[in-house]
Amino acid sequence: MSGVDIYALAKRLWPINRSITGDGVRETLRIIKEQLPTLLIHELPSGTPVFDWNIPKEWRVRDAYIIAPCGTKFCEFKKNNLHLVGYSTPVRATLSLSDLKKNLYTLPDQPNAIPYITSYYEERWGFCLKHEDFLKLVDGKYEIFIDSELFDGSLTYGELFIPGELKDEVFLSTYVCHPSMANNELSGPCVTTFIAKELLKKNRKYSYRIVFVPETIGSIAYLSQNIDQLKSKVIAGFNVSCVGDNRAYSYLPSRCGSTLSDLVAKHVLRNIDPSYSIYSWGDRGSDESQYCAPGVDLPIASIMRTKYGQFPEYHTSLDDLFSVVTPPGLEGGFEALWRAIEALEQHCFPKVTVFCEPQLGKRGLYPTLSTKSGNPEVRLMTDLITWSDGHRSLIEIADLCSCPVWDLYPIMEKLGEHGLIKAT
Amino acid sequence: MSGVDIYALAKRLWPINRSITGDGVRETLRIIKEQLPTLLIHELPSGTPVFDWNIPKEWRVRDAYIIAPCGTKFCEFKKNNLHLVGYSTPVRATLSLSDLKKNLYTLPDQPNAIPYITSYYEERWGFCLKHEDFLKLVDGKYEIFIDSELFDGSLTYGELFIPGELKDEVFLSTYVCHPSMANNELSGPCVTTFIAKELLKKNRKYSYRIVFVPETIGSIAYLSQNIDQLKSKVIAGFNVSCVGDNRAYSYLPSRCGSTLSDLVAKHVLRNIDPSYSIYSWGDRGSDESQYCAPGVDLPIASIMRTKYGQFPEYHTSLDDLFSVVTPPGLEGGFEALWRAIEALEQHCFPKVTVFCEPQLGKRGLYPTLSTKSGNPEVRLMTDLITWSDGHRSLIEIADLCSCPVWDLYPIMEKLGEHGLIKAT
Amino acid sequence: MSGVDIYALAKRLWPINRSITGDGVRETLRIIKEQLPTLLIHELPSGTPVFDWNIPKEWRVRDAYIIAPCGTKFCEFKKNNLHLVGYSTPVRATLSLSDLKKNLYTLPDQPNAIPYITSYYEERWGFCLKHEDFLKLVDGKYEIFIDSELFDGSLTYGELFIPGELKDEVFLSTYVCHPSMANNELSGPCVTTFIAKELLKKNRKYSYRIVFVPETIGSIAYLSQNIDQLKSKVIAGFNVSCVGDNRAYSYLPSRCGSTLSDLVAKHVLRNIDPSYSIYSWGDRGSDESQYCAPGVDLPIASIMRTKYGQFPEYHTSLDDLFSVVTPPGLEGGFEALWRAIEALEQHCFPKVTVFCEPQLGKRGLYPTLSTKSGNPEVRLMTDLITWSDGHRSLIEIADLCSCPVWDLYPIMEKLGEHGLIKAT
Repeated sequence: MSGVDIYALAKRLWPINRSITGDGVRETLRIIKEQLPTLLIHELPSGTPVFDWNIPKEWRVRDAYIIAPCGTKFCEFKKNNLHLVGYSTPVRATLSLSDLKKNLYTLPDQPNAIPYITSYYEERWGFCLKHEDFLKLVDGKYEIFIDSELFDGSLTYGELFIPGELKDEVFLSTYVCHPSMANNELSGPCVTTFIAKELLKKNRKYSYRIVFVPETIGSIAYLSQNIDQLKSKVIAGFNVSCVGDNRAYSYLPSRCGSTLSDLVAKHVLRNIDPSYSIYSWGDRGSDESQYCAPGVDLPIASIMRTKYGQFPEYHTSLDDLFSVVTPPGLEGGFEALWRAIEALEQHCFPKVTVFCEPQLGKRGLYPTLSTKSGNPEVRLMTDLITWSDGHRSLIEIADLCSCPVWDLYPIMEKLGEHGLIKAT
Repeated sequence: MSGVDIYALAKRLWPINRSITGDGVRETLRIIKEQLPTLLIHELPSGTPVFDWNIPKEWRVRDAYIIAPCGTKFCEFKKNNLHLVGYSTPVRATLSLSDLKKNLYTLPDQPNAIPYITSYYEERWGFCLKHEDFLKLVDGKYEIFIDSELFDGSLTYGELFIPGELKDEVFLSTYVCHPSMANNELSGPCVTTFIAKELLKKNRKYSYRIVFVPETIGSIAYLSQNIDQLKSKVIAGFNVSCVGDNRAYSYLPSRCGSTLSDLVAKHVLRNIDPSYSIYSWGDRGSDESQYCAPGVDLPIASIMRTKYGQFPEYHTSLDDLFSVVTPPGLEGGFEALWRAIEALEQHCFPKVTVFCEPQLGKRGLYPTLSTKSGNPEVRLMTDLITWSDGHRSLIEIADLCSCPVWDLYPIMEKLGEHGLIKAT
Repeated sequence: MSGVDIYALAKRLWPINRSITGDGVRETLRIIKEQLPTLLIHELPSGTPVFDWNIPKEWRVRDAYIIAPCGTKFCEFKKNNLHLVGYSTPVRATLSLSDLKKNLYTLPDQPNAIPYITSYYEERWGFCLKHEDFLKLVDGKYEIFIDSELFDGSLTYGELFIPGELKDEVFLSTYVCHPSMANNELSGPCVTTFIAKELLKKNRKYSYRIVFVPETIGSIAYLSQNIDQLKSKVIAGFNVSCVGDNRAYSYLPSRCGSTLSDLVAKHVLRNIDPSYSIYSWGDRGSDESQYCAPGVDLPIASIMRTKYGQFPEYHTSLDDLFSVVTPPGLEGGFEALWRAIEALEQHCFPKVTVFCEPQLGKRGLYPTLSTKSGNPEVRLMTDLITWSDGHRSLIEIADLCSCPVWDLYPIMEKLGEHGLIKAT
């Protein structure tokens, strides 16, 4: 998989104004459906109760800007959709600078960044701008123009089911509610799209259920519709977010911390990048909070590049497709997730079929001359055999052998052909 | 609670000649009963078998001293009750210095300290004095006078029962057998008295059973009378000793090491003083040895200031109410124990009542504007919620949230009022 | 036990040409049987299937050497049996130097060492020599002479059963297939012989089963004949190898890692030599691979001096009875194994017979005067008592008391005499 292809999809999705509802989400899912034709698109009406929440009104925005006393337009939504506070109500007004300022948001510590601000559950309006531009504003009358609507519409999400040999499911979730930001969050839906494409090319042991939802309300809505199904079928899964920059690998556990997903994620990341960052459940901040909530308790962990909240560009206009997210960054994110999926597919408890060491020599698998020095390949084979007691998983065995689990796949295959090992 | 009040009680009890039996214990308990009118005072006759032991004879002492060749009195019991070896038999004799020396005890390494020596189970007599005074003794005839008695009397102890909502009991034990020494041991009975007074002021979930006993023989006697009762009812408790100096906090585990008392003691001390001393069961030396003995196995841990045996003044006349035990020292000892008792009272396994995160915003518990920076108070609330799965205790949750459990009490109350959490 | 006696046996066995079959094994076992008259000697015919293997042909060698172009003999088997590759087929040929070299083995990194090479399961021939001698070989015709045979004979091993009070067995295994090398492996059979002699002198709680087998094929053969018996009876045991040099102590775990044998081995070695080397199952390389194979899973650990593969002389002519194996080295190997066997014999779960601390004073086991300083011997006794709850083994208690388990044997005896402790 080349990161260039994933990057191309990210560039195409970049300008769309995504939020937790609205046409931006629909357009995003439509483009993803071009890549994944079996993607189903669901609509949940505003007001639908979902656990402790209700689906909010849908937000539509056509245009928004401010005209300065000198007549120049700024904070133009059409130039950068971060300029408008998410879910801003419609406004047409003329305000003094001091009144306007009550509705302006900046980041004094990052004067060249437009902050990302939303107000989903309290009706208000506002504009976001660079602090360096904010400082240049002069006294006078400002014309505010926000052509938006909050109305009874629906919340939109996508769902893709890829059947496998087993009914047991691997669950992937990513979110499509962020406007023009790159690592958090165009990287998640883009990498997930290509993971799905790759899965569709092969035979799979497990079935895969992949959702593209708005964060928090979307995952809560999805869970409220599917919780029993998910609890009975999902054996592992990942929340896919922040998988696009090339600066780090990160792991955030499930709430339980020791699910199969955790085991796999830690093994894969340790073997890809021993210096990967290990976060705790206390550092959570995305949909894993819902999937692993008490009583929900799905086995969902997170494999990331640099985690949300941990990079300076986070939730600002600086989180872009130029200096933050790159093709190698996306490719690394894809690679880590794919290694994890492979490890799930290969997950088993190997069991040797004979008592004592098998005689590998008569099968051509062992050197016939016994000398002082050993052979690392043969050693790895005998190590795999000695741990194959039917009680240790292949991943645990890889850890015991101090090697990545993928080094064991060809040996498992060879020993299986000779009838010496069974994958129980 | 002010340490000054506890200190005043200690000053009043200071001069009394306590031992494992006798009028000193009775007088001490009488004064404590002034503070705790429902205190019951029990007498167990000499000779009563208590497990592997028998209640010893009662010891009464009216006076004791030595007259030097020059005619001056020294080692006067009435000036310092440590001068007389505990349980000394009556003597009237004239001895040469060399014969006298066989019955004199000093501490060459602490020449200005009178040591504390007892001989409960072997009849002998002796005097204790400062090594610097011992060195000044000159040859000649010494008159020995000990007006004491060992007779069939009884062993005295106090017991206070404070009923709570539940029949389950918290057990506190402290000892009243040490003559004029301060940290070990007037601090224990004094702090325990004020803990009991504080408990009597409030509604309690648990019942409390508090005993004031002579060390070792007293706790063995109490156990031999009440073991079945204690084993069926006591859910936690502490041996209260060395809680009066202001130099350190210390924890000594139960023999098991992982009882609720241990969990609470470690949590409280870690949050009061991260540099608190952690001892092991191998360092035990007080009544926990009996309460946690094999087959007894009560959940009793120790919360202390500076542990017995670990301060230079230990078991000498230097363990006083001036340089060792102070009002702030006693107040800190009280505080730590009280925090532990509160943590027991609040002990529960919280369980959130909704699936996924509750919508805190609609209840005014969450900021309506989503910005880059978080809110630590809201974070602590959502952390408490996410861990409230009914399987983790509130103390474990506090540890997971890296905060003292007492920071969670008001949040538990607020979430309880909103029906979002139950204390199971 | 003096290491000198063990060393004398090693010197006597040294010149014999041992291999996995043949008269060298028989002669070795015959000499051991002089020391252990009840040793049974078994023969298993060539071709017998043993799990995944078959007993190989027997190898007999009468003589072997090379004659150089100048007429001098070298690589003389009769001078050093390492000169001939183990299981070499018979040859009579005249070869050019370049053809000869295809069958010569040397160690360029250890030019003064003859390597130890075998080819049990592929028919070939070869000679081993010092690399410094190899470099002196000149062009010309070389006469090769190997008077050997591979024929349907049998595999020979020894088995000694020493009955004890219980049917439960301790299993010891060592190997007799190495030609003239000292630490790996004459030390194992020699030390094991003297362990057996010592066992025969005393009453034993456990029965002992001790086998002298060729490595790998011998242990596999023995297991294939006795696996059900061994699995039902063996409660602990050791593979005895590399117990003769005086440079280190080493532990290699069972595959499980936490059997009684592991507990004992680690305790003994930690207390004999705190700097002992701890290996992992990944470092295995002897018959423990068979005894602990999946499905076999006997509780067999290894107590060694310097482990095979970890000393420079390993598997060369430099592993000798002069600079490597010494009387003190053998004595230390014996001592460690004997301490382990004693610890197995003493293994129990002590249980105190009274509630609370027993009154040691009335039994003369406790000082009658209570002073500030303690008594370490009395402390160890009370520590043993406090941990004797019937749930902790004597070895675990020794660890809790930070002492070798052998320090507790006399205290257990004394407390037992006073009826205060039972060994459950």
